[in-house]
Amino acid sequence: MAAVLHGSRRSFLVTLLLLLAIALSAEAKIRHYRFHVAYQYKSPDCFQKLSVTINGQSPGPTIIAGQGDTVVVEVNNGLLTENTAIHWHGIRQIGTPWSDGTEGITQCPIAPGETFVYKFVVDRPGTYIYHAHYGMQRSAGLYGMIKVAVAEGAVEPFSYDYDRSIIVNDWWHKSTYDQAAGLSSIPFVFVGEPQSLLINGRGRFNCSMPSTTGGVCNLTNPDCSPSVFTVVPGKTYRFRIASVTSLSALNFGFEGHNMTVVEADGHYVKPFVVENLNLYSGETYSVIVKADQDPSRNYWASVNVVARKPSTATGTAILNYYPNHPSKLPPTTPPAGPQWDDTIVRFNQSTAIRAHPDHVEPPPPTSDRTIILLNTQNRIDGHTRWALNNVSFTLPHTPYLIALKHKLKHVFDSNPPPESYDYGSYDIQSIPSNPNATSSSSIYRLDFDSTVDVILQNANTLNPNNSETHPWHLHGHDFWVLGYGTGKFDPSVDVASFNLVDPIQKNTVPLHPYGWTALRFRADNPGVWAFHCHIESHFFMGMGMVFEEGVEKVGRLPRSIMGCGESKRLITKNL
Amino acid sequence: MAAVLHGSRRSFLVTLLLLLAIALSAEAKIRHYRFHVAYQYKSPDCFQKLSVTINGQSPGPTIIAGQGDTVVVEVNNGLLTENTAIHWHGIRQIGTPWSDGTEGITQCPIAPGETFVYKFVVDRPGTYIYHAHYGMQRSAGLYGMIKVAVAEGAVEPFSYDYDRSIIVNDWWHKSTYDQAAGLSSIPFVFVGEPQSLLINGRGRFNCSMPSTTGGVCNLTNPDCSPSVFTVVPGKTYRFRIASVTSLSALNFGFEGHNMTVVEADGHYVKPFVVENLNLYSGETYSVIVKADQDPSRNYWASVNVVARKPSTATGTAILNYYPNHPSKLPPTTPPAGPQWDDTIVRFNQSTAIRAHPDHVEPPPPTSDRTIILLNTQNRIDGHTRWALNNVSFTLPHTPYLIALKHKLKHVFDSNPPPESYDYGSYDIQSIPSNPNATSSSSIYRLDFDSTVDVILQNANTLNPNNSETHPWHLHGHDFWVLGYGTGKFDPSVDVASFNLVDPIQKNTVPLHPYGWTALRFRADNPGVWAFHCHIESHFFMGMGMVFEEGVEKVGRLPRSIMGCGESKRLITKNL
Repeated sequence: MAAVLHGSRRSFLVTLLLLLAIALSAEAKIRHYRFHVAYQYKSPDCFQKLSVTINGQSPGPTIIAGQGDTVVVEVNNGLLTENTAIHWHGIRQIGTPWSDGTEGITQCPIAPGETFVYKFVVDRPGTYIYHAHYGMQRSAGLYGMIKVAVAEGAVEPFSYDYDRSIIVNDWWHKSTYDQAAGLSSIPFVFVGEPQSLLINGRGRFNCSMPSTTGGVCNLTNPDCSPSVFTVVPGKTYRFRIASVTSLSALNFGFEGHNMTVVEADGHYVKPFVVENLNLYSGETYSVIVKADQDPSRNYWASVNVVARKPSTATGTAILNYYPNHPSKLPPTTPPAGPQWDDTIVRFNQSTAIRAHPDHVEPPPPTSDRTIILLNTQNRIDGHTRWALNNVSFTLPHTPYLIALKHKLKHVFDSNPPPESYDYGSYDIQSIPSNPNATSSSSIYRLDFDSTVDVILQNANTLNPNNSETHPWHLHGHDFWVLGYGTGKFDPSVDVASFNLVDPIQKNTVPLHPYGWTALRFRADNPGVWAFHCHIESHFFMGMGMVFEEGVEKVGRLPRSIMGCGESKRLITKNL
Repeated sequence: MAAVLHGSRRSFLVTLLLLLAIALSAEAKIRHYRFHVAYQYKSPDCFQKLSVTINGQSPGPTIIAGQGDTVVVEVNNGLLTENTAIHWHGIRQIGTPWSDGTEGITQCPIAPGETFVYKFVVDRPGTYIYHAHYGMQRSAGLYGMIKVAVAEGAVEPFSYDYDRSIIVNDWWHKSTYDQAAGLSSIPFVFVGEPQSLLINGRGRFNCSMPSTTGGVCNLTNPDCSPSVFTVVPGKTYRFRIASVTSLSALNFGFEGHNMTVVEADGHYVKPFVVENLNLYSGETYSVIVKADQDPSRNYWASVNVVARKPSTATGTAILNYYPNHPSKLPPTTPPAGPQWDDTIVRFNQSTAIRAHPDHVEPPPPTSDRTIILLNTQNRIDGHTRWALNNVSFTLPHTPYLIALKHKLKHVFDSNPPPESYDYGSYDIQSIPSNPNATSSSSIYRLDFDSTVDVILQNANTLNPNNSETHPWHLHGHDFWVLGYGTGKFDPSVDVASFNLVDPIQKNTVPLHPYGWTALRFRADNPGVWAFHCHIESHFFMGMGMVFEEGVEKVGRLPRSIMGCGESKRLITKNL
């Protein structure tokens, strides 16, 4: 893949040929899945709620494939009046930008009763996720995991006996309609902290607590019996851990067991040992855990909220030492996790994540363009919104990919959004002196094959002494994480601190309170790609943007992505 | 309009020319409306619930037009992930079948963010309604009234001083998602009887009652202050009364005042006097009321459930005699309405509704085709469904109008559905011996300009000694109501009882328990038209069908109705 990374203008072609070679190799397979999306009553935390399920499950089935395989997912929308779209988070969709599943960006939504076929190559091994990318449906339960095994004969830089998957989530009892209506209201109504944390779709609400909404709460419902991870004493386990939370940054750990971090977002990590792992929505990790503790008992797997003042109980699962009974509760109290507001610990974990020495893919030494994005909370016409450089993003209702490829007009604001903010005078430590912002659907158009730096700059929200943590996710690419800093990024100073030696590549990265995060990526994947805060409500409130690169190189778009908005104009005139 | 009624093959053309003449006449106007559809918190019965609103209101704005006017409604879908479609109930859409607003039949649903323009001529004066025709959105609050005044110079066969509108509805606290999920579940979960009855969107839930769902109940919320109809003593009022209930048959009355029924579904009625009026979902009436009672007090307007065992409180509004204070409560208890299970009284009201002697438009003396439809409750694969002649209707996801006009294949079942049932042996008084049925999207294709009789035959449901009341609504036409009967319709006997002299024309008509209702209509309106039970859940569970007639005569379809399902195949190949 070196050709891509140090790429000339031919790099895209080389990548395509490489993919083709993988696809044509003897091992490449077609992995076929059928997803039926529908509402069902579920009680993931013992409280009954309508959830969006896949084939009756939430989380949905795990997609299992090998490097180079083609994954085909036929998504049938069985919702009554709601559309849907599913994003394959971490899959770059090289050559298939129309399969990225981002409504308004790469496709029209899938209407009720319709079946949409996603087809894409999983070109890199690793741990990925999928989830709805429409409205707030992810929060309603539409998510799952993707595991891509290394190609046959390839060796990973760590070893283990067994492979297990963990997907963590936060969960509310109010419907996503309620949540969204509140976010759009004047005054703004926040749904509040989650009622529970789920591990593999299972949690436990204290039914005796006052509920935010009426309903059935039943602690004996099998839906909410805790997840169990059975281990054999002495064996070594790879746990793939992914977060799809709507709001919460989480801290995950196995009571009494250290974890060695070895993979992040599909990239091998220079191994480091932690007692517990902070993970942000949209991130995936693999950790190696040895079942080397007292085998006469079980242990807690636990997850706690960090980075926001928690008011949600610890989420738990059971690490079951065989042959103890899987439902035998550990004799201890579940770990409460670290101090929620210890930003430095989380900052340090972020900076500890480096590429594995044997798998360094160095970034281009310089960039062609630097975009600095001030992250702020604002007000527009009385609504609370998030903005980047004072522009709050609004999705158009004709996907950019179709609009750009077919030159449809009046679809989005064609003025370029701002490249930076007034970092000379803006006080990131205070409430904005002028909280006004504008709304726009404008996008960043990138020169194809250019190298782009993005500096995410955090600031104070509309509340005094408050700056939130934002997990930023880029579609269609991995980026190099060049660095994190505290305070205001100063181009004249901080560029010198960039790690150009062994930066990890990721697709999701935290922006810490009052800090900055610097990324670099190659604009080498023809298409239109979202870049946004992975907190469901933040993206809903405008905390996102879109990159276009090489859209003229994109192949013929499938008609299945069309039909909405101005794309109706592509319906033949010969009616 | 006589040419239409005794129509030869030219009748359609004559109608079109007539419409054109009306449209071109000096008085015809364009009536322009903009509807923004969005969820908002509303407390119509003092209990806070997310409601689908139009311009922030539920019911939406009343459309006011004159005969021959063109109504243009720009519907902007401001829902987050849900589509919508609005049906203009009672408007025949002559020449504009694509504006009928029936998702899956005449148009693709309107996606979030999109604006769809409905444009149609209101060719007859009278009282009509509009409401969502998608999923169960009508039940969520998307409805309103249409008032069409007579052409200037035209005289109505009754007189009054003032014109007032009343729209009644039943209301649940559970969301329509909850309701629909229950209906589709195994076992079937019914939402139960409504929590309240609304008059012009206002009712009153007893907040001290146990709620089916948690939430805020506040009796002082201005949303639920009762509707007030102020009258001046001695004056005469026309009250237009419409029902958009999802389930309930209702009985409406003004305490201490008789009402003279003068209009039904846009047709003048041979006047008859009632103390209270039974009305079924989808029906509209005008009644004349004289403010001739003791003017020192106010009176109740009241609405009660009939035809189902009620467990919903009387819905009330205030008939305010000026100058009494409008909020001064009447000194009496609101009328409890008639005996809910007195079917004979309701049957007799149905048969009392005849065309006004000066406005009789006699039906064709014979029909070309008779379709007998046995209405039954059934089970299909464990689901509770409704069926006609053992076929439970399912909507396709490509609208019939587009599929038929553009010869798209694989959209719906092209086998014709059954014309009748085994009336020789079927026992309508008992639980079906075999409750199985089949699901189908098949339709009835009618010869253009032919005369069609439809006999609706009621039967016992899946519960012993139970037969429900079904209000049947036909799109695109008015039909003549030829008769009602009890027990099983016998073609060899009952045809002779048909009223061919002065039958009323309607678009919605009740089918009484264990009885039959006979209709006749001319298949003279090119298009594809739904005919269905107007109970929201019954149509959802298959109690409907579709007529096609003269689809080859339909003009070029607007692209705005397309984009879903197989209509994507009409997107140009020159991409």
